[in-house]
Amino acid sequence: MADIKIEFPDGKQKEFGADQTTKDVAESISVSLAKKAVAGKLNGKLIDLNAPLKHDGKIEVVASDSEDGLSVLRESVALLAKVALKESFPSIEFGEEVGDEKGFYIDTDKEDGQVSADSLPAISDKVQAFINQKAPIKHISMSKADALKKLDGTSYEAKLVQDSDEEEVSFYEIDGVQVLASGVAFENAGDIKYFRLLSVAGAYFEGKSSNPMLQRIYGTAFYKQADLDADLQQRQEAREHDHRVIGNDLDLFFVDPKAGAGLPYWMPNGATIRRTVERYIIDKEVADGYEHVYTPVLANLDLYKTSGHWDHYRDDMFPPMDMGDGEMLELRPMNCPSHIQIYNRHIRSYRELPLRIAELGMMHRYEKSGALSGLQRVREMTLNDGHTFVALDQVQDEFKKILKLIMDVYKDFNINDYSFRLSYRDPKNTKKYFDDDEMWNRSQKMLKGAMDDLGLDYYEAEGEAAFYGPKLDIQTKTALGNDETMSTIQLDFMLPARFDLKYVGADGENHRPVMIHRGIVGTMERFIAYLTEIYKGAFPTWLAPKQVKIIPVSDDKHGDYADSLSKSLRSAGVRAEVDHRGEKMNYLIRDAQTHKIPYTLVVGDDEVANKSVSVREYGEDKSESMSADQFKDKVLDDIAHYSNYKG
Amino acid sequence: MADIKIEFPDGKQKEFGADQTTKDVAESISVSLAKKAVAGKLNGKLIDLNAPLKHDGKIEVVASDSEDGLSVLRESVALLAKVALKESFPSIEFGEEVGDEKGFYIDTDKEDGQVSADSLPAISDKVQAFINQKAPIKHISMSKADALKKLDGTSYEAKLVQDSDEEEVSFYEIDGVQVLASGVAFENAGDIKYFRLLSVAGAYFEGKSSNPMLQRIYGTAFYKQADLDADLQQRQEAREHDHRVIGNDLDLFFVDPKAGAGLPYWMPNGATIRRTVERYIIDKEVADGYEHVYTPVLANLDLYKTSGHWDHYRDDMFPPMDMGDGEMLELRPMNCPSHIQIYNRHIRSYRELPLRIAELGMMHRYEKSGALSGLQRVREMTLNDGHTFVALDQVQDEFKKILKLIMDVYKDFNINDYSFRLSYRDPKNTKKYFDDDEMWNRSQKMLKGAMDDLGLDYYEAEGEAAFYGPKLDIQTKTALGNDETMSTIQLDFMLPARFDLKYVGADGENHRPVMIHRGIVGTMERFIAYLTEIYKGAFPTWLAPKQVKIIPVSDDKHGDYADSLSKSLRSAGVRAEVDHRGEKMNYLIRDAQTHKIPYTLVVGDDEVANKSVSVREYGEDKSESMSADQFKDKVLDDIAHYSNYKG
Repeated sequence: MADIKIEFPDGKQKEFGADQTTKDVAESISVSLAKKAVAGKLNGKLIDLNAPLKHDGKIEVVASDSEDGLSVLRESVALLAKVALKESFPSIEFGEEVGDEKGFYIDTDKEDGQVSADSLPAISDKVQAFINQKAPIKHISMSKADALKKLDGTSYEAKLVQDSDEEEVSFYEIDGVQVLASGVAFENAGDIKYFRLLSVAGAYFEGKSSNPMLQRIYGTAFYKQADLDADLQQRQEAREHDHRVIGNDLDLFFVDPKAGAGLPYWMPNGATIRRTVERYIIDKEVADGYEHVYTPVLANLDLYKTSGHWDHYRDDMFPPMDMGDGEMLELRPMNCPSHIQIYNRHIRSYRELPLRIAELGMMHRYEKSGALSGLQRVREMTLNDGHTFVALDQVQDEFKKILKLIMDVYKDFNINDYSFRLSYRDPKNTKKYFDDDEMWNRSQKMLKGAMDDLGLDYYEAEGEAAFYGPKLDIQTKTALGNDETMSTIQLDFMLPARFDLKYVGADGENHRPVMIHRGIVGTMERFIAYLTEIYKGAFPTWLAPKQVKIIPVSDDKHGDYADSLSKSLRSAGVRAEVDHRGEKMNYLIRDAQTHKIPYTLVVGDDEVANKSVSVREYGEDKSESMSADQFKDKVLDDIAHYSNYKG
Repeated sequence: MADIKIEFPDGKQKEFGADQTTKDVAESISVSLAKKAVAGKLNGKLIDLNAPLKHDGKIEVVASDSEDGLSVLRESVALLAKVALKESFPSIEFGEEVGDEKGFYIDTDKEDGQVSADSLPAISDKVQAFINQKAPIKHISMSKADALKKLDGTSYEAKLVQDSDEEEVSFYEIDGVQVLASGVAFENAGDIKYFRLLSVAGAYFEGKSSNPMLQRIYGTAFYKQADLDADLQQRQEAREHDHRVIGNDLDLFFVDPKAGAGLPYWMPNGATIRRTVERYIIDKEVADGYEHVYTPVLANLDLYKTSGHWDHYRDDMFPPMDMGDGEMLELRPMNCPSHIQIYNRHIRSYRELPLRIAELGMMHRYEKSGALSGLQRVREMTLNDGHTFVALDQVQDEFKKILKLIMDVYKDFNINDYSFRLSYRDPKNTKKYFDDDEMWNRSQKMLKGAMDDLGLDYYEAEGEAAFYGPKLDIQTKTALGNDETMSTIQLDFMLPARFDLKYVGADGENHRPVMIHRGIVGTMERFIAYLTEIYKGAFPTWLAPKQVKIIPVSDDKHGDYADSLSKSLRSAGVRAEVDHRGEKMNYLIRDAQTHKIPYTLVVGDDEVANKSVSVREYGEDKSESMSADQFKDKVLDDIAHYSNYKG
């Protein structure tokens, strides 16, 4: 065979025989590399380790300790699992199957009831058996046309092949069974060491809610036991913090894709938390000089043409509705134009500035259905939004005032892990930024000055500003350590110009205000997802949907006293309730703990006689006895101090 | 001329010559009728009093003391006004012009600035001059084609003629000027007695917001001075109660048709009232055992197909949005399907019933832009909605409980003028009503029994029930004496069947619950429009957007004391503010009264020395002196008792 030219990652070139393989290439470099090699990457495409290279190109040797290396391992396990599934359930059909740096999954469909978590141990055993037998994994490559002929009658896989851009389609054969593959695998099952089938969950075929719901089997695999253990540990931790899992356990909310993807329903427990947060933030803002308003979620599309959203943000917007009378209505993607309407309702004087408009404003954004997740990524959301309109020389004071409000709110929610990022324009990139040198220079100086005055640590990011002005982002850490922008203060020079905003100055002339977009806690959806995760569902008393559970030792004998306690607490605004089920006391106490209720009161003969209660706080092993009045004071103090007060 | 056959309203027929007129017909009946006759109505169409009848038909003599008689009078005045306008502003163009039982209006357009209210006296004088001159009003009838030729270049009128179904087009000539007419007029201006040009306001051509905004001139006319006086008096009264006028004066809300017809923006003052009402009603419901939720305003169209809304209610719904991934999303027209989602989230036990789900649920309904009005008729609304799910034998108790809640709420808002209507099915009309005799019989008996038990007066309306069940409507009287349904309790047997709702009974079997739709105060929009009208904008203290205005006699000397008072009141939750403008005291007091602020405090040397305040309540002439602490107690009592407490 003729020689081919192979280029290495460092740019060097070498000639090989066309029948030589990535393995040969690896061996030509070093023995240790050859030992770690699990596949090749020719011109950016994964290939089998022992596939002939055939033509010129850039080669990369895929080592086991790389992301691609993990993908090959996981694809191999996924293929073994597919064969095991096929052998266990001959009528099974497969949808997508992916092995990558995150793990692997296999979508399945069965007419006679979906695969359940109960089947995973048996499937796992079969996979392990292939590994123990060192079963060969044979690659079969064919043209798209041949593959479609072969897949005739298997609707999902045929559709996937049909939709694919690849000309060649891969199958692998194990134990005499051929399965479609999305990636590259080992040559022998014996190379697999550590794997785990994790869970099953529903998933729409191709991620579209108009398609049938399939059953997705999740798994993972590693080259080392320690890596598998660490991953399983981290998954367990994530599960314990996951607001979707907690939301389900504590009955906070649910999403029903059949009723609408990304459109959460807040159950009474979740709604109570949200209502408490909403009232808290409105009261806080009103006390700080904000004027709260309600503005419509719909507006004439023209409003978003003027604002520029329609031109620059259309992909994230819902389709406009033709009202038939010449009007096109649009679900708003942002509240700023609505607040500008409020500003422009009157001629404004410099005496009114800073004018602070705020709202819990519902907005709609189009997200692909595959990207949606619990309360974190949704299509309908309610933003703790505010816009203050200021004269340029008021920017620094107003910025400080907003920042102070944010810090106050963080304290009440016990948010301690955050950092400040100050984003400036890149002065050399004039096209990317609104053109007004004086505005930029003065306002950036004011923001920096404010941060310094307040003695806050921050980092500066040149070229990270929005088109319309510099900003401060406050990054918090989620329970899993990811960065998330919680709060933002953004100056805007552009919208005031686009909407021709004015105020009459002390000089009697018209001036243009600066607009400051600010968010304290973001959307209710994301914020409550965040709180759920950092609190692991154990909400502080003031936020807890149920604050006090009262358990009578005997419902017959102590139920009335329990009711009178509950009534007294409820009339003081405490969310108390009595458990009248009459089950065994230990079971009822455990149940209250499972629901993460801050206070469990047990009342029996002594308590009735002494008008007292036996109080057990969430997470504590021991109970404390106190008078009913003392407890009432304690819980009211707890609520009034946002649970930051330990009395 | 050949004879024609004329039939009178009583069915009698008589022959007349074809050149005879309505006047001749009237004279043939009685002299008194001929005296009152102002036009004819041939086959239901108004004609000039002296127009030849020409062909067979049913005749009616239009007398001055009829609605048609008023229309003829008002059309005559409108035509004189059009001529007067044309003579005053030669470049003026006209849009629609209508004279009817409500009054008349003329739409106008002028390139060089619209006609303003300032021009009305001059136009009025010209009309009066035509009347004094007894100017003839000459009818000119022509074909549509000729009319279009004549109107060439006058865009609005040509469009109106083009769109009209009539083959003949009417013009009238006065003072040598010919104007297009939409109705029938007198023959002589001298017949007009009492008229008034009232006001001007913007109105879209043909009522569509996509068309240009014209200037509409309103007026009215009567045959008797006393009728005109009474009408002007009533208009004045309506203006004083009109929530749109008050909403503007007190800066409560506005609608900007350019940003969206029927989509109100709540200014800070209106938003404060709304927020107070929302918190009040949620707290009241939660205390009454309701579980408040938040559910999305959007849902997959399928949900409204299942509920039946899409089949039976489509004309009132917004157009669906195609999300491009096979999903059609719809803005909900009602919240019931959303609350059914909440019910169906879990398997329900008889122990959970009655299950009470409530929400301030935003909904969208398509109304023609011409029908929209202030907060009363809107396209986006937030309903104080609730659904309770009960076993059939719980209907009566739950109905009583809801009714008791409604009565409680009425008391707090001081709503005293209402009546009860109990609506049953018509048992003979089986098609119009959901088919379940037992359900109907038992439940109707339960509702009636409940009303009797509670000793309430009510009237029964057979055949007025909804398709899905019997209901109670509570009708209130608006400030202008119109009936309005404020509250409703509706049983529903249909949706539980359509959505296959179940609960597990004590017998361990599945049973179907009854659903009760109930609204206490209706939508926030209509309720606050209603409150604004009955209170004439003088909201009781607990609802007033600004509760206390503090006026320092001298801002320099007493401003600090005023601020300390304000701070103390605000920290107790009172909406107090200081007027620091330093204008004359009487002007500031008058200004506070104009804004209908419940309490105005004046503070000078004495008050600073004694830590006291001089209190003036809204609508009172005199002030009362009391200590600052006494006042604080007084205003807090007032708020806590929903202003039903006079301390």
